[in-house]
Amino acid sequence: MIIIGERINGMFRDIAKAIREKDPKPVQEWARKQEEAGAGYLDINVGPAVSDRVSAMKWLVEVTQEASKIPLCLDSTDYDAIEAGLEVCKEPAMINSVPAIPDKMDRVFTMAAKFNAEVIGLAMGEEGIPKDAESRVALAMELVANCDAYGIPIDSLYIDPLALPCNVGQAHGPEVFETLRQIKLLSDPPPKTAIGLSNISQGTKEREIINRTFAAMCIACGLDAAVADACDEELVATIATARVLMNLDIFCDSYAEVYRTRNL
Amino acid sequence: MIIIGERINGMFRDIAKAIREKDPKPVQEWARKQEEAGAGYLDINVGPAVSDRVSAMKWLVEVTQEASKIPLCLDSTDYDAIEAGLEVCKEPAMINSVPAIPDKMDRVFTMAAKFNAEVIGLAMGEEGIPKDAESRVALAMELVANCDAYGIPIDSLYIDPLALPCNVGQAHGPEVFETLRQIKLLSDPPPKTAIGLSNISQGTKEREIINRTFAAMCIACGLDAAVADACDEELVATIATARVLMNLDIFCDSYAEVYRTRNL
Repeated sequence: MIIIGERINGMFRDIAKAIREKDPKPVQEWARKQEEAGAGYLDINVGPAVSDRVSAMKWLVEVTQEASKIPLCLDSTDYDAIEAGLEVCKEPAMINSVPAIPDKMDRVFTMAAKFNAEVIGLAMGEEGIPKDAESRVALAMELVANCDAYGIPIDSLYIDPLALPCNVGQAHGPEVFETLRQIKLLSDPPPKTAIGLSNISQGTKEREIINRTFAAMCIACGLDAAVADACDEELVATIATARVLMNLDIFCDSYAEVYRTRNL
Repeated sequence: MIIIGERINGMFRDIAKAIREKDPKPVQEWARKQEEAGAGYLDINVGPAVSDRVSAMKWLVEVTQEASKIPLCLDSTDYDAIEAGLEVCKEPAMINSVPAIPDKMDRVFTMAAKFNAEVIGLAMGEEGIPKDAESRVALAMELVANCDAYGIPIDSLYIDPLALPCNVGQAHGPEVFETLRQIKLLSDPPPKTAIGLSNISQGTKEREIINRTFAAMCIACGLDAAVADACDEELVATIATARVLMNLDIFCDSYAEVYRTRNL
């Protein structure tokens, strides 16, 4: 499983301030720190409070790229901002995200084809997040079909089954695991899967153990990527361990270190 | 998932000494400690070095029962020792274990029917542990069919898919996960599943993180019980977390504490 480092996000005060003051330093520090901790991608999100999201995204992408060479995951519901970011990306990026809603899929998959980008597709439609695995998988199939129709390789699509906080949406847990498994049966090659990991523990007291236990369980169900805290050392060690137990990385005594430094 | 506390085992020096000297104290201390830590069963194993396994098992069962009321899991390849233990058990116990080999199944399922005992059945036959999930599931089916033939309820049977140490048998990992899933499709009600958790990390440096990550992954695949270290607090917290994420226990902020104290 690949970690998409979640920290360059305007929801965090230091990043919001950096965007406001056009100060690249905090952004670049987090870029380096997450890369060294084991992130394979860096999520880039201007946050909710920015007035001009287009120029903020462009700036964030540019300053991040000065500090790190790992691929970026442009995270916004404002597709103009994502497009502005893609235009300045030096390497192919990931778009985070598109729901299974026709006009949004049209906009995002058209961009993805143009910029050779990967896409995170959300298992939700006009009516929000479904309760059961079957409905999530049906929406995933719509994403797969659209992705294919726009000429994008299916394994450039990451389906997010959408985890809800376990203190309010506990019944969704087993549905998310089942969705992850079934997505791998949708096509050959199958789409990849991604998840916003920290959602599962929103509002709980023991966030870290919930995050890392959920990560291990999702990996057992075939999860390929997660937007997560790359600087949570126990989480990264758990992911490295789960990869070894899935026989995805070769065991050696220092497998956790190998996982963390594979991009460097 | 239920923890079968692994500590009353003659492989540990203090227990071997206690058996030799007929000193109930170390045994009873471990019985209480494991029960308080969250064990649902206590594994009872006289160990390899005992000359008279029958009388050692009988003694271990008797002194353990003086200290704890949770059910026992009698663990031996010597079925005379298991039978002697069953005769003095005050409550129905679990037999650990029987492979899918006809004469051994006959002996063990006959005992289980007589003493109303649960049984751990190993997914291995005359030729040892199979490499793939399909062969493990075929052996599981033999165990299910035999269990049924002896009139034992199928959900009194726990199938162990047999995990090998990840540093030597790494390719078995995904096969174990797949076996756990498929076992749940064998019958209705399905058999339960159990695993010797600590096996996975034998000979590795980072045993605890491997054990608890493997536990979380197995629970995502439907694992019901594990012979494990109930006094590993991080492991117990991980199991409690995984149960909440599987929607098996209701979330509350103190869910880990609730899990640990549910027997008390």
